[in-house]
Amino acid sequence: MSAEIPIYDPELLKKYNLGERHETLKGDESLCVRPLYMSDYNRGFLELLGELTEVGNISEEQFQEQFEFMKNSHGTYYCTVIIDTIKDRVVGASTLLMERKFIRGCALRARLEDVVVSPNYRGKQLGKCIVEILTNLGRALGAYKMTLDCKDSMTPFYESLGYAKEPGNSNTLSIRYAAASKPEPKL
Amino acid sequence: MSAEIPIYDPELLKKYNLGERHETLKGDESLCVRPLYMSDYNRGFLELLGELTEVGNISEEQFQEQFEFMKNSHGTYYCTVIIDTIKDRVVGASTLLMERKFIRGCALRARLEDVVVSPNYRGKQLGKCIVEILTNLGRALGAYKMTLDCKDSMTPFYESLGYAKEPGNSNTLSIRYAAASKPEPKL
Ligand SMILES: CC(C)(COP(=O)(O)OP(=O)(O)OC[C@H]1O[C@@H](n2cnc3c(N)ncnc32)[C@H](O)[C@@H]1OP(=O)(O)O)[C@@H](O)C(=O)NCCC(=O)NCCS
Ligand SMILES: CC(C)(COP(=O)(O)OP(=O)(O)OC[C@H]1O[C@@H](n2cnc3c(N)ncnc32)[C@H](O)[C@@H]1OP(=O)(O)O)[C@@H](O)C(=O)NCCC(=O)NCCS
Repeated sequence: MSAEIPIYDPELLKKYNLGERHETLKGDESLCVRPLYMSDYNRGFLELLGELTEVGNISEEQFQEQFEFMKNSHGTYYCTVIIDTIKDRVVGASTLLMERKFIRGCALRARLEDVVVSPNYRGKQLGKCIVEILTNLGRALGAYKMTLDCKDSMTPFYESLGYAKEPGNSNTLSIRYAAASKPEPKL
Repeated sequence: MSAEIPIYDPELLKKYNLGERHETLKGDESLCVRPLYMSDYNRGFLELLGELTEVGNISEEQFQEQFEFMKNSHGTYYCTVIIDTIKDRVVGASTLLMERKFIRGCALRARLEDVVVSPNYRGKQLGKCIVEILTNLGRALGAYKMTLDCKDSMTPFYESLGYAKEPGNSNTLSIRYAAASKPEPKL
């Protein structure tokens, strides 16, 4: 069915031997890691993102449209989820974003975004699991580096997974726009 | 000619009244801001990026392939240049990257990347000019925020343009991969 459309090729995680071999998941047969499916709208994906920040009311149609856009940006959005296959719910999620560059021989820069684990499933190494899998996927896809930005309270978590502040080069600066206008697609 | 292909619609800068009205450019008729063209390979675009970091040997074919990929990722890569129209050279450049999110009502997050001005043209407000234009473009395209990462020495430059560290939330962490494998396109 169209609803089972994955946002990227599931073979990728198998090809690089990610996901399935992860110790955390081996320990619990009911959990699996896979690309986001379009049908995950009905498995609590957006409610899970609500643990991270404001999500708002997103209709199924709106979700599908954004999903299609990401899927059609081939090789850019690797939205990945952990599923409790017994409850049929999304219990963890994160996105690997692959940015094309001209520098460094037309390189790829990987970015880790929106890491979240469902409150009832925290402390079981699932956060670590999804970060490790996407970090390895970024490497396997050929990135020269992978970056993320985070709150002070989260730096020990990422440092325990191999991420580091580069001395003198670890600042994230931002501007928040007051009232975002409606996004204009595809200009 | 195919060589004059712009990486995004040049009307966009006009539509939002960016670029042309910028004071810096008004002061010097020989300068203009526009999207990157495929032909900028021959106007010193890659040599300019060499002022920023390692670029390596990129053949025209390789450049065109990356350019096509970015152009076909509609509404994602806004590579923008400042041209000295008398010398017919690229003298400034930066890229606005628009990332699709599910959070915040399927929001857009803007990122500023690879800001650079040619050494002979520094100190004339061109750096400021291109950052302001892309910051306004990010807003006009509907982003809820725009971020960048930079070295300690560059924070005053961006702070003077309205960017700020968010207290407790301004860390960039990274992993550099030892030997990047050849990027795998479009998986
Ligand atoms: C952050 C989050 C994803 C962690 O998920 P989790 O599955 O509970 O984490 P894990 O069980 O994999 O923890 C792995 C290790 O990191 C540690 N850790 C977890 N959260 C941490 C934190 N905030 N600070 C420091 N260490 C942390 C754990 O103690 C554990 O250590 P151990 O291996 O020595 O036992 C989860 O708490 C969450 O979703 N939080 C809300 C959303 C959020 O803040 N996301 C991060 C955005 S940058
Ligand atoms: C950074 C860079 C783009 C600035 O370009 P520029 O055209 O010389 O800058 P501008 O003339 O627009 O400078 C605008 C203002 O910022 C200030 N400024 C410039 N570089 C600065 C720096 N490194 N730190 C603090 N302030 C700086 C200028 O003094 C000027 O201030 P003023 O408006 O009070 O006169 C240019 O120096 C460059 O290409 N550097 C190498 C690449 C690089 O480091 N890029 C940044 C990557 S994060």
